[in-house]
Amino acid sequence: MNRIITIGRQFGSGGRELGLRLAQNLGVAYYDREVITEIVKRTQLSEAYVQQVVEHRPNPLYPITIGQSFPLLLDPTWEMNRSIYREQTNVIVEMAEKSDCVIVGRCADDILKEHHPLRLFVYAEMEHRLRRTRKHATSEEQLNDKQLQKKILDMDRNRAQYYRLYTGKEWGEKENYDLCLNTSQVELVTLADWVAQLAKDW
Amino acid sequence: MNRIITIGRQFGSGGRELGLRLAQNLGVAYYDREVITEIVKRTQLSEAYVQQVVEHRPNPLYPITIGQSFPLLLDPTWEMNRSIYREQTNVIVEMAEKSDCVIVGRCADDILKEHHPLRLFVYAEMEHRLRRTRKHATSEEQLNDKQLQKKILDMDRNRAQYYRLYTGKEWGEKENYDLCLNTSQVELVTLADWVAQLAKDW
Repeated sequence: MNRIITIGRQFGSGGRELGLRLAQNLGVAYYDREVITEIVKRTQLSEAYVQQVVEHRPNPLYPITIGQSFPLLLDPTWEMNRSIYREQTNVIVEMAEKSDCVIVGRCADDILKEHHPLRLFVYAEMEHRLRRTRKHATSEEQLNDKQLQKKILDMDRNRAQYYRLYTGKEWGEKENYDLCLNTSQVELVTLADWVAQLAKDW
Repeated sequence: MNRIITIGRQFGSGGRELGLRLAQNLGVAYYDREVITEIVKRTQLSEAYVQQVVEHRPNPLYPITIGQSFPLLLDPTWEMNRSIYREQTNVIVEMAEKSDCVIVGRCADDILKEHHPLRLFVYAEMEHRLRRTRKHATSEEQLNDKQLQKKILDMDRNRAQYYRLYTGKEWGEKENYDLCLNTSQVELVTLADWVAQLAKDW
């Protein structure tokens, strides 16, 4: 079975950079937005639409667990979301079966549970996340601290809601991961070297 | 400043063994029950009494945060508990200032926050914790799974209540630690080797 590392991450915690460094370090494939590109290719839907469904909050009018109620089953938006999730599942399983890899986000820890991935969750203190997000922001995105904190918390809430909807589990709850890493006090490059070492022994 | 590692741990997760192996691996001091022995020496209280205060649930009649209410301040049991905690604080700070060390439990992560310790929290799935606790139980302690699970959850609840009372923070909440380790899928000896490596770079 291939060596798979999945990374859940708080917005602004550096989880994506950690994943990239980790994949480089181990010489394995790295998947993040590549999952969306592949879904777009297979479904002929627009990239913007798929991204909206995969990365943003599901319609808050829907119940939080997947119900079998009559109106829900007939709702075309919900059916489309579910079919995109099914496609995402296929894409991720195929990626995991092709070679060793690092997959960031997209419920991969749950989708690949039969493949026994090393499941990481990356988080950081708000102060650190503000600084990091600000560093990576474009010039149009000059928000003040309060606005930026709201954006960060909104992104986390979307991820939590999406994860809960499709896996029935709590996003970021340590019991759902093998290792939770706080990036506030340590350089990502140090952390990546170190996780790479563990991944070899896993 | 000395290199300090603090370990919070769910009951039955193997946190104590991980701490011991880690200390051996790094060649540094290891403190767990030694903290109690030292408090006993300094206070002339009985070991059983100190252990009861330090390891068991605080009186549930007390409010969960340290209040300044009049009746609480006059309560002799509460005053005694607080003075034991103060002594524990002194003991732990002295240990941390003496040499590099690993300290298990006893709110050391919070007590030593100015010393910037590497703060670990160790946890595991219930199935793993049942198996582990059963392996270490004496023959008189042959509980069935349901009884043993209750004992494990009671111990966790005591630790959480004690931690919350003295630190004002949530025990086991990942934000209060640098690294949370799930011991369900990996050998403690592998994990100890691996954490020792990180501790050197911390």
